[in-house]
Amino acid sequence: MWNLPHGPLHADMYAYTMALAHFRKGDHDTPTTYHAFVRKNPFGGSYTLVAGIHDFLRWLRDFRFTDYRTDYLASLKTMKGNRLFDDAFLKMVRDTPLSLTIDALPEGELTFPNVPVARVSGPQWQCLIVEATLLNLINAQSLVATEASRCVHAAEGTPVIDGSLRRSMDVGGYASARAAFIGGFSGTSNVAVARALGLPARGTFAHAYVTFHKEEETAFRNYAETMDDVVMLLDTYDTLTAARLATRICKELGKPLLGVRLDSGDLGWLSLEVRRILDEAGFRDTYVMASNDLNPRTIASLRAQQKAGEAAIDRWMVGTDIGAPHEGGALGGVYKLAEVAGRPVIKVAERGVSAADTKTTIPGPYGVVRMLRDKDGRERIAGDTLLSLDTLGRVTGWGATDKLTSPDNGRFQLTSDLVSVNLADPERPTKFRAGQLCYVPHRRMMTRGDIVYEMPSLDEIQAFARTGLDRLDPAHRRLDQPHIYVAGLDEGLYEMRRRMIRDIHLSHQ
Amino acid sequence: MWNLPHGPLHADMYAYTMALAHFRKGDHDTPTTYHAFVRKNPFGGSYTLVAGIHDFLRWLRDFRFTDYRTDYLASLKTMKGNRLFDDAFLKMVRDTPLSLTIDALPEGELTFPNVPVARVSGPQWQCLIVEATLLNLINAQSLVATEASRCVHAAEGTPVIDGSLRRSMDVGGYASARAAFIGGFSGTSNVAVARALGLPARGTFAHAYVTFHKEEETAFRNYAETMDDVVMLLDTYDTLTAARLATRICKELGKPLLGVRLDSGDLGWLSLEVRRILDEAGFRDTYVMASNDLNPRTIASLRAQQKAGEAAIDRWMVGTDIGAPHEGGALGGVYKLAEVAGRPVIKVAERGVSAADTKTTIPGPYGVVRMLRDKDGRERIAGDTLLSLDTLGRVTGWGATDKLTSPDNGRFQLTSDLVSVNLADPERPTKFRAGQLCYVPHRRMMTRGDIVYEMPSLDEIQAFARTGLDRLDPAHRRLDQPHIYVAGLDEGLYEMRRRMIRDIHLSHQ
Repeated sequence: MWNLPHGPLHADMYAYTMALAHFRKGDHDTPTTYHAFVRKNPFGGSYTLVAGIHDFLRWLRDFRFTDYRTDYLASLKTMKGNRLFDDAFLKMVRDTPLSLTIDALPEGELTFPNVPVARVSGPQWQCLIVEATLLNLINAQSLVATEASRCVHAAEGTPVIDGSLRRSMDVGGYASARAAFIGGFSGTSNVAVARALGLPARGTFAHAYVTFHKEEETAFRNYAETMDDVVMLLDTYDTLTAARLATRICKELGKPLLGVRLDSGDLGWLSLEVRRILDEAGFRDTYVMASNDLNPRTIASLRAQQKAGEAAIDRWMVGTDIGAPHEGGALGGVYKLAEVAGRPVIKVAERGVSAADTKTTIPGPYGVVRMLRDKDGRERIAGDTLLSLDTLGRVTGWGATDKLTSPDNGRFQLTSDLVSVNLADPERPTKFRAGQLCYVPHRRMMTRGDIVYEMPSLDEIQAFARTGLDRLDPAHRRLDQPHIYVAGLDEGLYEMRRRMIRDIHLSHQ
Repeated sequence: MWNLPHGPLHADMYAYTMALAHFRKGDHDTPTTYHAFVRKNPFGGSYTLVAGIHDFLRWLRDFRFTDYRTDYLASLKTMKGNRLFDDAFLKMVRDTPLSLTIDALPEGELTFPNVPVARVSGPQWQCLIVEATLLNLINAQSLVATEASRCVHAAEGTPVIDGSLRRSMDVGGYASARAAFIGGFSGTSNVAVARALGLPARGTFAHAYVTFHKEEETAFRNYAETMDDVVMLLDTYDTLTAARLATRICKELGKPLLGVRLDSGDLGWLSLEVRRILDEAGFRDTYVMASNDLNPRTIASLRAQQKAGEAAIDRWMVGTDIGAPHEGGALGGVYKLAEVAGRPVIKVAERGVSAADTKTTIPGPYGVVRMLRDKDGRERIAGDTLLSLDTLGRVTGWGATDKLTSPDNGRFQLTSDLVSVNLADPERPTKFRAGQLCYVPHRRMMTRGDIVYEMPSLDEIQAFARTGLDRLDPAHRRLDQPHIYVAGLDEGLYEMRRRMIRDIHLSHQ
């Protein structure tokens, strides 16, 4: 595999110091449950598209404390000069096999604030050590997958290609190319990732190929003469002159002109003039690709121009916005303790700017039921309800089992009513009645350290994501001011949370 | 080494298709020179701090076309179904050893728009293949190093720690932790990177350690009893209650309290109240660390509050802003052809929003002289002049040699006058007279495929960066509206560029 982080040292230091403190009190093996979830959707949007889980599973598969890893830990010192990690602790981490149990959203599934992307259960010390890698992988890839899906949405069916390698953060660009494909991109410029993941590799030539030759004509002629697939980059000197040149040369050589690319200037106006030149020369099937700092908004703007007859673009390459999506910053996915030895726990944050915008967590291990409805003759998702695993067992009719995940995202009908409370507006609950069509999006991925999940291919994940996105109401997919999709709390869970917050505040006064 | 991109396939596809087109015309070996440079400083700032070059050199050291790499290329097909890359081409890339020559700014050096971060010379096809990895590595790490240096500047001597692992783009967080250290950070939360690079690993405990225990008091007591270095996280329930608890427990146990951390709420007000509680309890040496979405502006604001007696923070942890610095987007470093077989070339872009804000390149291989002056009794850098290598040989007195790089950043005096033209204001040139103190910041790093540069340690790079940043005028380091630092063009270079642009425009009308 490609560039995966190396083993259990790929963690935040505090995970190890906490584990050590627990070990010295003998409570490192206490069973706990954590939730990883996003607090806010990125880009001011209404959803987050999940990606990165498979890489996390692969990392867990290779979770081993080799000598060179424990030797490093053994070498660390405290301020006093003592060894930070003693031999007994290092022997424990080395001798204890991984025994985590993980339920998670499959890659390509949608998530919303507070919906668990992953629920991780197991010995406290192991739950701690895996936090940073889980967040690193799902934050980065989910951010990119979400932005990619917004580009694809804006492109309205025309293909979008990843060109992020030179702009992606961190060595590799693996995550951005992979996640962009999950979000619906058609290919990548990155040869190594294309090879590693079996994605289509795309690219023809750069301005340097033109400036290398004394005349643009020589460059175009040489390229057309030597290559099967001729795509000409037009904006090295003058775009319209180059368009006429490209058609003339391909005609002379009897070569098809597969496409042209525009990388600077007024893309709308230039594309329209280029399209006219291509059509007049009989190259009606030649595509016009645009690049140059594109993002969902610029693509949407150019599509709007196209409808007004002011642009003609068939294909897009997006680089910076996928390699380093910055419109909404990083994805602030977090990982929070929910339960200790069967006891639900909560973290009550200092007050934020509003009661709804809080770092206070939701207590107890909880699941989610995703509601479905018909609208305009199509199936849409209509709201999530978070609920304790007991309640989940009851409303699904599955009982209190530890398999509260749906093996195939199968639809079923609620067996009893659910009252769902919106944290931002708790006085106006929503009632879902018994018989409501819904599904449980989580899948069991790991049971006591064994991967029990068959990871779908990237093509399958892309198709699954497309299906899910199609079930979002168009109002939720709007780039600007989308309708907010709400994950409410089942009334029982809401009440437990409210009481716990109240008791903690009173007990600290 | 850590997660380095794997070999020559770590490239954009167009590099391979261009190389193939050249090969089929027999001009793939033509000697060319490219410059990598930034067009704009990130974050609205006045400088870019260079990082990532060593990883590029390490990647070049392992540049090999193994079977599994050429087999992949051999498997690719054109739209017609023919093989894209034929055996003759693959034999050529496999049999030709790397023969690039590279002059670059050392890591930790400052750069400015148009100043070459690297000058790469060699056979055209090899210059093409290395583009994306060079840009990937220097764009990402230089962006982070620059932002880190802005955090360190804002922190005014108090330590800043990297906590970016869970937020960094792409698997690893290697680049962000490494570059943050170059920018002046004191340590990292990332254990694997700390191990790989020999950086200090930092971290104590998270909210989960507190919520794991039924009472905050038990958590604090267990941690203090078991650990040498006691740093308490205070904001799990109520920050000031926790501060009193932490001091009481450490007193009872006779343990020093090394530090406390605040991760939510009003950091200024809370830090002041916490400082008071610590001082009153006799813990005058205990540090107060802040975290929670910090960046240069929030740190600067808290330092200003501190001067007004309204905050008391000694130490900072920065995560998101280093793992995914988004204030200024990605660093748009580019790689442009400058010379073909001794002929200077230029890429003339379609018009941008202003004449100065253009993608038009500077022709010919060029170097840079960085001017020095005394101000307020301290040495400052006072402007860069870009100049052809011929002119560089003349003004340095080094003659027309291919070693126009200074082995040790040694100062020297100009041997003849230099007139420097600011592209944004070409009618008001600046004259630097013979005798002006200056230096040439580039170093020779690779000669015909051999690394000839002894890479300094990360500690040395950090110290070098600090020295360079100290030589920036404070007006250039301001976070808001900094004084712009200009890299002007030597008059000869400016004239050549102007004429080439004019001729190209006229020839396309």
